[in-house]
Amino acid sequence: MTEQIISADIVAKHNASRQADLTRDYDALGERLSRRGIDIAAILDKVSKFNVAVPSWGVGTGGTRFARFPGQGEPRDIFDKIEDCAVISQLTRATNTVSLHIPWDKAEPNRLKQAASRFGLGFDAMNSNTFSDAAGQKQSYKFGSLTNADAGARSQAVEHNIECIEIGKAIGSKALTIWIGDGSNFPGQVNFARSFERYLDSAKEIYKALPDDWKLFTEHKMYEPAFYSTVVQDWGTNYIIAQELGAKAFCLVDLGHHAPNVNIEMIVSRLIQFKKLGGFHFNDSKYGDDDLDAGSVDPYRLFLVFNELVDAELNGAEGFDPAHMLDQSHNVTDPIESLMLSAVEVQRAYAQALLVDRKGLEGFQEDNDALMATQTLKTAYRTDVEPILAMARLNAGGAIEPVAAYREAGYRAKVAAERPAVAGGSGGIV
Amino acid sequence: MTEQIISADIVAKHNASRQADLTRDYDALGERLSRRGIDIAAILDKVSKFNVAVPSWGVGTGGTRFARFPGQGEPRDIFDKIEDCAVISQLTRATNTVSLHIPWDKAEPNRLKQAASRFGLGFDAMNSNTFSDAAGQKQSYKFGSLTNADAGARSQAVEHNIECIEIGKAIGSKALTIWIGDGSNFPGQVNFARSFERYLDSAKEIYKALPDDWKLFTEHKMYEPAFYSTVVQDWGTNYIIAQELGAKAFCLVDLGHHAPNVNIEMIVSRLIQFKKLGGFHFNDSKYGDDDLDAGSVDPYRLFLVFNELVDAELNGAEGFDPAHMLDQSHNVTDPIESLMLSAVEVQRAYAQALLVDRKGLEGFQEDNDALMATQTLKTAYRTDVEPILAMARLNAGGAIEPVAAYREAGYRAKVAAERPAVAGGSGGIV
Amino acid sequence: MTEQIISADIVAKHNASRQADLTRDYDALGERLSRRGIDIAAILDKVSKFNVAVPSWGVGTGGTRFARFPGQGEPRDIFDKIEDCAVISQLTRATNTVSLHIPWDKAEPNRLKQAASRFGLGFDAMNSNTFSDAAGQKQSYKFGSLTNADAGARSQAVEHNIECIEIGKAIGSKALTIWIGDGSNFPGQVNFARSFERYLDSAKEIYKALPDDWKLFTEHKMYEPAFYSTVVQDWGTNYIIAQELGAKAFCLVDLGHHAPNVNIEMIVSRLIQFKKLGGFHFNDSKYGDDDLDAGSVDPYRLFLVFNELVDAELNGAEGFDPAHMLDQSHNVTDPIESLMLSAVEVQRAYAQALLVDRKGLEGFQEDNDALMATQTLKTAYRTDVEPILAMARLNAGGAIEPVAAYREAGYRAKVAAERPAVAGGSGGIV
Amino acid sequence: MTEQIISADIVAKHNASRQADLTRDYDALGERLSRRGIDIAAILDKVSKFNVAVPSWGVGTGGTRFARFPGQGEPRDIFDKIEDCAVISQLTRATNTVSLHIPWDKAEPNRLKQAASRFGLGFDAMNSNTFSDAAGQKQSYKFGSLTNADAGARSQAVEHNIECIEIGKAIGSKALTIWIGDGSNFPGQVNFARSFERYLDSAKEIYKALPDDWKLFTEHKMYEPAFYSTVVQDWGTNYIIAQELGAKAFCLVDLGHHAPNVNIEMIVSRLIQFKKLGGFHFNDSKYGDDDLDAGSVDPYRLFLVFNELVDAELNGAEGFDPAHMLDQSHNVTDPIESLMLSAVEVQRAYAQALLVDRKGLEGFQEDNDALMATQTLKTAYRTDVEPILAMARLNAGGAIEPVAAYREAGYRAKVAAERPAVAGGSGGIV
Repeated sequence: MTEQIISADIVAKHNASRQADLTRDYDALGERLSRRGIDIAAILDKVSKFNVAVPSWGVGTGGTRFARFPGQGEPRDIFDKIEDCAVISQLTRATNTVSLHIPWDKAEPNRLKQAASRFGLGFDAMNSNTFSDAAGQKQSYKFGSLTNADAGARSQAVEHNIECIEIGKAIGSKALTIWIGDGSNFPGQVNFARSFERYLDSAKEIYKALPDDWKLFTEHKMYEPAFYSTVVQDWGTNYIIAQELGAKAFCLVDLGHHAPNVNIEMIVSRLIQFKKLGGFHFNDSKYGDDDLDAGSVDPYRLFLVFNELVDAELNGAEGFDPAHMLDQSHNVTDPIESLMLSAVEVQRAYAQALLVDRKGLEGFQEDNDALMATQTLKTAYRTDVEPILAMARLNAGGAIEPVAAYREAGYRAKVAAERPAVAGGSGGIV
Repeated sequence: MTEQIISADIVAKHNASRQADLTRDYDALGERLSRRGIDIAAILDKVSKFNVAVPSWGVGTGGTRFARFPGQGEPRDIFDKIEDCAVISQLTRATNTVSLHIPWDKAEPNRLKQAASRFGLGFDAMNSNTFSDAAGQKQSYKFGSLTNADAGARSQAVEHNIECIEIGKAIGSKALTIWIGDGSNFPGQVNFARSFERYLDSAKEIYKALPDDWKLFTEHKMYEPAFYSTVVQDWGTNYIIAQELGAKAFCLVDLGHHAPNVNIEMIVSRLIQFKKLGGFHFNDSKYGDDDLDAGSVDPYRLFLVFNELVDAELNGAEGFDPAHMLDQSHNVTDPIESLMLSAVEVQRAYAQALLVDRKGLEGFQEDNDALMATQTLKTAYRTDVEPILAMARLNAGGAIEPVAAYREAGYRAKVAAERPAVAGGSGGIV
Repeated sequence: MTEQIISADIVAKHNASRQADLTRDYDALGERLSRRGIDIAAILDKVSKFNVAVPSWGVGTGGTRFARFPGQGEPRDIFDKIEDCAVISQLTRATNTVSLHIPWDKAEPNRLKQAASRFGLGFDAMNSNTFSDAAGQKQSYKFGSLTNADAGARSQAVEHNIECIEIGKAIGSKALTIWIGDGSNFPGQVNFARSFERYLDSAKEIYKALPDDWKLFTEHKMYEPAFYSTVVQDWGTNYIIAQELGAKAFCLVDLGHHAPNVNIEMIVSRLIQFKKLGGFHFNDSKYGDDDLDAGSVDPYRLFLVFNELVDAELNGAEGFDPAHMLDQSHNVTDPIESLMLSAVEVQRAYAQALLVDRKGLEGFQEDNDALMATQTLKTAYRTDVEPILAMARLNAGGAIEPVAAYREAGYRAKVAAERPAVAGGSGGIV
Repeated sequence: MTEQIISADIVAKHNASRQADLTRDYDALGERLSRRGIDIAAILDKVSKFNVAVPSWGVGTGGTRFARFPGQGEPRDIFDKIEDCAVISQLTRATNTVSLHIPWDKAEPNRLKQAASRFGLGFDAMNSNTFSDAAGQKQSYKFGSLTNADAGARSQAVEHNIECIEIGKAIGSKALTIWIGDGSNFPGQVNFARSFERYLDSAKEIYKALPDDWKLFTEHKMYEPAFYSTVVQDWGTNYIIAQELGAKAFCLVDLGHHAPNVNIEMIVSRLIQFKKLGGFHFNDSKYGDDDLDAGSVDPYRLFLVFNELVDAELNGAEGFDPAHMLDQSHNVTDPIESLMLSAVEVQRAYAQALLVDRKGLEGFQEDNDALMATQTLKTAYRTDVEPILAMARLNAGGAIEPVAAYREAGYRAKVAAERPAVAGGSGGIV
């Protein structure tokens, strides 16, 4: 039986005090939706099945190149991280998998599996790391990994990715995510074409090691850590990669990895249309790859992305099965709280997108009735679906208000007492 | 024999007064370059063969949605425009073709051919126009052309493009450029996937009508005139189009059509690498599709684009033969002056890129010597190649200083007397 | 008594069929809000008093530099425009003033007053136009107006603004809004300091003519129609202008006039704090000055702006009395429909901002509880306040669903029959 | 007598082999400039007096939040850093001061003074650090420093700045630069007005401690490390700060701290015009605060900034005396090499700006001859002034080619043998 970190009594008490109001709100919403021809129970059912993976690295406090300000009770290793992820899962019931980062989370595979299954958790995509040098590593990635001018460094990076696949196979993962920082800081530092050739050659080596039932996700990003050019800089390059590699290769979309003003939902549509959408790293951003909490700055954009996803889901788009992952940096909040609310925000966007009157929308589109088309989206978006989300949690044993329940349980104070403080960032980089 | 609009005497006198200094500067530069192992004569030879097409619409004064402030002596029709283009060609010797826009430039093909050949000019790519409604047109493009929800509007747009091909065949053009404004102003106004399907279906119809020795250029643009989504929004979509259509389809890069901060030279490299670079609409921009004079705001970026082009040229990249066109809006200058200097700026970037020590550069790249690699580009870029450009013009019968010669010839005043003033813009749009 | 363009019967019938559901939704919302300690009647009262001015130019179909696609029944003159504005006001009850643009709307002042008062409308800020040349104008603004190198052009522009004040005095306006397009398209074209000196000198002349009970609003904009530099390019320059001119001078914020990614709500806060916020031109944008419908692309940003405004309102910030105006370009919708919904969107953001638990928010801010602070805003924003807005309209004699009522009334078809079609844009600008 | 780290023999030999060519190039350039009415000796004189400060933190290898890849022979402490700065100064003769960062560079003031004066170096502005927590610090800056909700944290930050002034007084500095990272990552996290009030109150405390012959520089930055709002986000806020503080307070402009597409040279002009330009942190950027080498990505922009500075210098703008500092992050190059070339790039932009025909430019501006105005700038910019820069170095005892001389001297290998390797970044932040 699944172990629960937060005491069932606390959760039960939390829910008991809120259940009457929730039921009333849920029923009132159901009545309003029924007037729009929507069956709230069907929405609840879909929402209840929705899950988004939690990144293991997300439960630690993040930072910037200027400083990292540690939080209390930070996880000391992957096993602490899995416990934190279990809390998130228990209270939200929307995050039943964890995504690992190697070598940070390296451990004996059986121990990893046991640690996760104890809490009913599985493993999502494996993430390799060739954007920093691990201690004792032979070749440095200072001048690139999969595209390094040095063949030895490239091989080492390929081997590392293959090792990630091996670990993943042992723990039940079915995907590898590759994000590299390779690029340049100066015009002329690298030859664009030669770098990309090397990328493709290296990626093909990794692809060869991929089991048949796995997917390979490659992630594009406009800039950072390279500040003049980045090898996989946008979805155009990423799409070429997925094409060159083969049927198991897909593009991963991180919402913060695009140029200013770019219409991300249209990129999502293109990747779906050409069967290369692998999934998402959800987060939000205002300036660059800010890694803010999903939906915290531009919630309508998140909804518009889900509008595309639900459209594809309902159309039965061939091979459509995107992975959902959070990827955020929690610099000023309790990471568990941020991850719980972010998972809920992603779920919320999904629920809102399910409310879109798609038949009406299509009619307005065919009639060039731009105003009513956009109002059709807005009507769905404006609906406060919180009662549906809360009911889904309640029914599944989660908390009506996850953050309140978490605070009531005093989890952070408890782990702060057990886990010694971690030193801050060096502050040496300006 | 080629007719010259600017009197040969004026040009000769202009050049005579400058020739001695030019020769001295050319020789001094030759000596400096020889120290770097570069033969100035070989550079001069390449530069002399370089040409960029002038857009017929560029010789009229441009404007914005707020106003258009006419200039003096604006061309009344395509024949006036060809004369203005002939002046540009005569003085710069770097613009031996004109690119037409249909229906604006529609005329009896034989008359067009004669008008151009009289001045030794040829015709570059044909440009269709389905972003505005022509008088008497049956279907409106208000809600799109190649992607309009209405099949009749789509057909009409396809037919118009085929007509452009027909005209082009009659006058010796070898390419069709398609830029459309189709998109949306509101989330939900169009279905992204359906729009793009329609685009591909329409484009395939046009492609079928393309002669075997023609190329089809499709142009991407981030936004404007559509302000929420644009069907061909970036090079990723454009690349898919070129792939879907076939071997005669290529992507056209307009330097002002990208998101802020985007590394355009890397896009150029990708398109070369995957054999889909069709050519350029040269101009410059600071904010959006500003259509400023080429090289006027960020001359180093123009150089970096040519660095890629020269690299491909010297490597003998397969099928590499990009079209060069200017595409600018001259709102506050004499369009002829702006086009002359812009052609020279493009030629200058080419000349500078020819000076790059490519063997040295490759060595620095392989050694990860980022500093010396970028200095190798800077050394070429910093070289003041004006004496080479001027010598190329002098040798070919052009003017050492085109703008000065043009002003000395009093061309603008002459045509102002012949061509009545054109009314300004409506000013009714805010 | 106020005349009503849309028949009262149609509106009554429209409302009758919706009133029962509205009452039910309003009561349910009231109950939910009361649990949060909010009295819905107090919110309704504030919302009912909220108004935003309609720009006279907004009721015509807008366009871009590429084309303008006319709509049906476009207003032929200011009197048609006032009728269209009256429809907007009648159905939304949130737009009781019209903002005029001179010379476009020039007419005998008494006729203007009578036309407006017939529908219970007043006049908001006057808008001058020195960004385009009016027919017969002596000096051209091609190279600037208030900052033109030519003293005659500057004087003419100053005189035009003073004329706007005179007209405004006659019709009961209390403010002048100045937006100019002055700037440059090339580095070096203008001397930044000299241009700005000229701006200040010209503006001071206009300021002298301003009555004591008037306000002067100056508007900043990053770019367009000038594409290298713009004299009043951002709030920093705008703030200096307001400081230099005096106590009646204030800064106007147009939501689409900022650089990409800029935090506009913080600019609003700064201008409030330093007593120089004049008001708003509401609209939305994704790329540049897109002039899209308010709240159509980033509704949360609009809410965050109103969060600042409500905060100042509740704090009794000294001299705080911002003007609300819409300023949009309706290229693909019926302008009346867009303006009705945009007014409602602005009102919606105001209503949502009124729901913020400000005491709770302040506590979270002082405690550095970033997560709960931002959730406090989100809780307010997520509330579907449509029942409050609809109830405010119903109580004031408007329509529960303005667009539906407008379509039921067949107004557009009626005026299309009366008003001849207007020709499209020239399409001559690329 | 000033001590020289690089052996005089090596420099002499380096120069000897290049001097003949340099003289020839210098003379040829002098002849060409004399045709344009420019006296090369006068330019050489001005260029020779130009200096830019080197940041102590710049001689260490920089990094990103993802990783830091150490270089060889990195300085272990401020005394190593001063030696590295001495090398830069010796070979370029354009960097006679060092700018310190406290507490990183804290040491006994007399030792600091002696270490610097040994190499003929002085101290430029002091830099405080309240964007990271120093070991053993009482209050954390996790939630802000000068604007922290906690008065104790604010006091501590004020005291730290006053300590920086004290150290500066002891070592001969005359300025304090304040950059803070205070801001927020979530809408609602901070109250904008209250934060800015706290900023002003704290800054006034620091200002009080400022000696009469000192300047206070405050630096604005759009974002990072805060990703939703930043207290001193742009020049508008920075200008208000300088106004509120008093006559010794000035704005510092870092070229990488602005929103995309912003016209920085116009901001420079405004600050000069209103007597609040304090100086610069020179670097270059393509995306955000990339801290790339000055002039490496957009050299024309650097020139346009200097065009404003030289204009003010020649006009004798009142109180005009801007500080020049480099502020860069050298992630993939030898920091000494990057700093040498960056100092030269800044000097180059100054030299080019000195060549502008200002009388001609003013004439073109008054005549609205945009084309010739911009060509006037381009003519200056295109001039290859390297012979002037090299001659200035040669005359002052520096190296004709600083990087070549540095490599010939083998300095890096020498210090690598003396200074143990520094560990890389944690790589724990994604």
